[in-house]
Amino acid sequence: MAKYNGHPKCKLVLLPSGRQGMVEAGESVLDAARTLGVEIESICGGRQTCGKCLIEVESGTFDKHGVTSQMSNLSEPEEIERTYADEHKINLKTQRLSCATRIIDDVVIHVPIESQARKQIIRKEASDLALEVNPAVKLHYVEVPQGILGGPSDWDRLRDALKDQWNLDDLNIDLKALQTLHSKLIEGNWAVTVTVWQDREIMRIEPGYVESLYGLAIDIGSTTVACYLCDLRTGEVRSTTAMMNPQIRFGEDLMSRVSYAMNEPQGVLRMNQAIVKAISELSGQAAEEAGIKPHEITDIVLVGNTVMHHLFLGIDPTPLGGAPFTLSIQDALDVNARDLNIKNTHPGAKAHILPCIAGHVGADNVGVLLAEQPSFDDQISLIVDIGTNAEILLGREGEIYSASSPTGPAFEGAQISHGQRAAPGAIERVRIDKQLGSVRYRVVGDERWSDELTEGESLQPTGICGSGIIEVVAELFLAGLIDNGGLFQEDASHRSPAVRYNGRTAEIVIAQSEESGSQQEIIVTQNDIRAIQLAKGALYAGVRLLMNHMEVDHVDRIKLAGAFGSYIDPKYAMVIGLIPDCNLDQVQSIGNAAGDGARIALLNREQRDIAARASREVNYVETAMEPTFQEYFVDAMVLPHARDKFEHIEDLLSNIKSSDLRPSQRRREHIDRA
Amino acid sequence: MAKYNGHPKCKLVLLPSGRQGMVEAGESVLDAARTLGVEIESICGGRQTCGKCLIEVESGTFDKHGVTSQMSNLSEPEEIERTYADEHKINLKTQRLSCATRIIDDVVIHVPIESQARKQIIRKEASDLALEVNPAVKLHYVEVPQGILGGPSDWDRLRDALKDQWNLDDLNIDLKALQTLHSKLIEGNWAVTVTVWQDREIMRIEPGYVESLYGLAIDIGSTTVACYLCDLRTGEVRSTTAMMNPQIRFGEDLMSRVSYAMNEPQGVLRMNQAIVKAISELSGQAAEEAGIKPHEITDIVLVGNTVMHHLFLGIDPTPLGGAPFTLSIQDALDVNARDLNIKNTHPGAKAHILPCIAGHVGADNVGVLLAEQPSFDDQISLIVDIGTNAEILLGREGEIYSASSPTGPAFEGAQISHGQRAAPGAIERVRIDKQLGSVRYRVVGDERWSDELTEGESLQPTGICGSGIIEVVAELFLAGLIDNGGLFQEDASHRSPAVRYNGRTAEIVIAQSEESGSQQEIIVTQNDIRAIQLAKGALYAGVRLLMNHMEVDHVDRIKLAGAFGSYIDPKYAMVIGLIPDCNLDQVQSIGNAAGDGARIALLNREQRDIAARASREVNYVETAMEPTFQEYFVDAMVLPHARDKFEHIEDLLSNIKSSDLRPSQRRREHIDRA
Repeated sequence: MAKYNGHPKCKLVLLPSGRQGMVEAGESVLDAARTLGVEIESICGGRQTCGKCLIEVESGTFDKHGVTSQMSNLSEPEEIERTYADEHKINLKTQRLSCATRIIDDVVIHVPIESQARKQIIRKEASDLALEVNPAVKLHYVEVPQGILGGPSDWDRLRDALKDQWNLDDLNIDLKALQTLHSKLIEGNWAVTVTVWQDREIMRIEPGYVESLYGLAIDIGSTTVACYLCDLRTGEVRSTTAMMNPQIRFGEDLMSRVSYAMNEPQGVLRMNQAIVKAISELSGQAAEEAGIKPHEITDIVLVGNTVMHHLFLGIDPTPLGGAPFTLSIQDALDVNARDLNIKNTHPGAKAHILPCIAGHVGADNVGVLLAEQPSFDDQISLIVDIGTNAEILLGREGEIYSASSPTGPAFEGAQISHGQRAAPGAIERVRIDKQLGSVRYRVVGDERWSDELTEGESLQPTGICGSGIIEVVAELFLAGLIDNGGLFQEDASHRSPAVRYNGRTAEIVIAQSEESGSQQEIIVTQNDIRAIQLAKGALYAGVRLLMNHMEVDHVDRIKLAGAFGSYIDPKYAMVIGLIPDCNLDQVQSIGNAAGDGARIALLNREQRDIAARASREVNYVETAMEPTFQEYFVDAMVLPHARDKFEHIEDLLSNIKSSDLRPSQRRREHIDRA
Repeated sequence: MAKYNGHPKCKLVLLPSGRQGMVEAGESVLDAARTLGVEIESICGGRQTCGKCLIEVESGTFDKHGVTSQMSNLSEPEEIERTYADEHKINLKTQRLSCATRIIDDVVIHVPIESQARKQIIRKEASDLALEVNPAVKLHYVEVPQGILGGPSDWDRLRDALKDQWNLDDLNIDLKALQTLHSKLIEGNWAVTVTVWQDREIMRIEPGYVESLYGLAIDIGSTTVACYLCDLRTGEVRSTTAMMNPQIRFGEDLMSRVSYAMNEPQGVLRMNQAIVKAISELSGQAAEEAGIKPHEITDIVLVGNTVMHHLFLGIDPTPLGGAPFTLSIQDALDVNARDLNIKNTHPGAKAHILPCIAGHVGADNVGVLLAEQPSFDDQISLIVDIGTNAEILLGREGEIYSASSPTGPAFEGAQISHGQRAAPGAIERVRIDKQLGSVRYRVVGDERWSDELTEGESLQPTGICGSGIIEVVAELFLAGLIDNGGLFQEDASHRSPAVRYNGRTAEIVIAQSEESGSQQEIIVTQNDIRAIQLAKGALYAGVRLLMNHMEVDHVDRIKLAGAFGSYIDPKYAMVIGLIPDCNLDQVQSIGNAAGDGARIALLNREQRDIAARASREVNYVETAMEPTFQEYFVDAMVLPHARDKFEHIEDLLSNIKSSDLRPSQRRREHIDRA
């Protein structure tokens, strides 16, 4: 608790949004959160009866936020709340009704997705793929002779029948299937459909003739977990579900999660349980949406970056947080889903985790490789997947190089003054008038520009996301308000009413406090620009390193993978020098290529072998071991990207001026309004 | 509830002893049980404070006993009991303090082992075996190079090191081991000892050099579960633990359990959970006794009859209860112990279940086969394991025949008027004076004969066990009180004061009510004799059938396996014609040969292959399919065993007269006084 102008104030940190600020001591969590721009759902209007505003109190020391949080930093529950909690099995040691709970001291609060008034619904539509369907699990209808006195066992007769009727040899049977064998034979009147995994293990037995065969392709992102439920007979995607990765509460970015694993005694277990629970829930939802029973799901393929990969498997990711960044396992892994505690699938369901490439290049990148195999033809292709690390693939037929560059989380809106993840309310597009220096913007979830509104209306922005910050930096540069080193020009505040000097450094106001959803100005500071320069410098340096290794001086096409790659406007990416020069029509967003790769491996078992080979054949370049990387990095911090590329800017400018600036179709697909 | 002489009476059935009788309505369970000879522990003397007398009320219809039991057939708990229950987390919906609970109507009560005042402690000492120790799990100490930047994963380096240093190829790693890999490498300073199963899967990793390697051999008997903890490096048995099979509460004999599985919706699951819990407890106890940690147990081998085998695996045994008696699986099975929900072992522990032979000849018999391999030399050996079914092996080198004869549970004391299992208080030895016709007896747990006691003392017998009944029948026959058809002679009551006529049939009183632990006479009726004749006839007919198949007219040696085989006096077995003629010195009790077989398969993996082959090579004869079986059966009902064998009796008689009749050493080993 601190005092400001005599009033006691407490620091309130809200997860998963990461929004934080000083609020009045004694204020309810519901009200205080609103002042920070976080809307918590409430139907009963604070009467402690609807329970929609349920929040969770985080206990522990949050170094990043400088807060030691505990339940006793909130007011004691009173009678009404206690009664409500009793009736609804709410554990008041960790959960509270935010309308009834007053803030006494600094506290970290987690607002579960169910309690968020503006829910973040993230949906990744699976892209279309042309692929031969040849899954790892297959159905075989078989007629089994009845048992006779002194004759062979059920399993002997089933095995013989599968040999006779399907030429399947050396079969095993999973215990869970064996347990049901006799009753299924009886139920099916001595005819059953068996599900066989990799032609060697019976993992399910269904009575009679059955066509049901489903699997899940799951992309475990640091932020989003996406799940595609596929019909393994037709290859069709039957439903797509996604949710926030619940590990976010343990750390927003990968390094925070690694350090949570390192510092908390039960850290690995808690993060593992969180992601496994999420996957189980997604599986249940996906089944419901597809109108099938969870038990019909028999196979799962998963991808994720190396930290997600390790945490999902219950492996401590600590070694990935420091040199020599050694993986516990690089190979693909086949396990029983039940050994991973995954629910809402068949008890005998299998899980295949794609292999990794190196300490910073995970199974998600192998997924991208699988999805983008045709890219590696006689042209030079660059594929970039941007997260906390940028995973880079550069190659053509016969040679592929890979590296991971430490971009940090700036592109994800983290470590930026008013940064936030791309979610409804986030500023995603920014334009600065070259003459007047005035600023206009658009937010996620609204197609209108801020200068198109009628009097009294506002877009209620809550922060600025990665693509928005990139546009701010690019527009500042194009308007001449910052120099090629990223510094505000001395006359910038004269040339733009939005720019002002704040002590020794300048900043630009994107949204005024009265139009903002948090009643606070949304600004981009000199430091924020510097963070973007560092991030884009790291990425560009990684690309240049790979180009050196491959001995090429240009790339023919660029593919931007992942959520960020879908949100970003490639033109602006090129303006700030995030990516190397390339014809704009050869720059393409490929969406969730990692998830597509998981789907490919789910639908076709031979692709798993291809993935295994690819993960070993890719030439991995460890940026930390390359002396030139640092040099390239510093060089690449300038805008647009390298001192010798200035002449290209004019083309880009004309291109942007003629563009209609409407958001890409793909972008709209990625957002479902809450 | 019924009325007798105007007094309301209720039927009380006590499990697991199976004792039952009519008791006064309104009596406490504690007192009523005592009148039936079941002593429930009580320290506080009925003050409802010690909780030692806790019993469980069974709900449901028990056809065998003609009782529909439910909690409401007992008095409502009052204040003191409620308070005690609250404090000690006792669920009064199923559990009660027997001192506080009055009987209102017919009821079935389970007295848990902890609440039994005369606890049955069953201990099977593992017999000595000469065997090459070559277990399925082996230790390999290996030094692994440290990870380097951009270098291979921990698993890659471990695998390569195992290839280099141990020539182990194509290894997999279990997820549970993988999860610990990195931390164990660090802890062991890049040296670890891995436990490898069948040269193909790493299932445990320990830091540094480690010698600990333990396994369990488990014999799941219908009545007793025995567990041998072995050091898999030395072959030494480090501890032996045993407990009652908790499935007894669901049915005393195999057929009752099959019918419980058939009739109760959750029957299979409940019996499976009971046996798995028992095995987990035994494992924990065995580890404690051996002074090791449960996590040091990495391999388990199990045997059991076919019903135990199926229930342990979670497979419905219903098909084993009726023709064609088809097994779900005959083959041996290798599974992860965790998939069977076994606790108190290493998370990666393996379980190997020996194969079965046929619907009535289970993995326990394959265990016997393994243990008795040397028996099958140029001599003709007969091995008999008597339970509810008698499992019979007859063979010599190169040919082994097997059958199962439906002896029924009479030898186990069931379906006999005052029969009970061999447990302290059971009459196990009986002598009838040939001149006076007087009876004397001994009980389990006491070395004195009933006629050796001082005035006022008594042995307090509670019933008569299988070996006791056999001796009654044999002694009655030898004293000429019954004829060779098993019928009491017309003058029997004149020649023995113990024999009396009861309506149309006669019976013999073994113990008077005043000397009995249950204050009731202990008698053997004409029907009881008939039950023994049926049982021994079935067994003998099975043996004769196998002799026919093998085309031999005699056996050279006889081995009696299992608890009953240890308890029975071979001479009396031969007098009543339980077993065929054979030199008495060639009749041997081999104790728990099934458990020995499990130990052999635990200590030597090649023996598992031998067991697999043997289970297929044994010539199984299905008695139910043999037209001559019924003929042999009827023929074998006469005493001693076949009409043409009378001349042999005199030899036997002289042998018995000269014998000192002291119980065998082995027998004493089987009973630890409570």
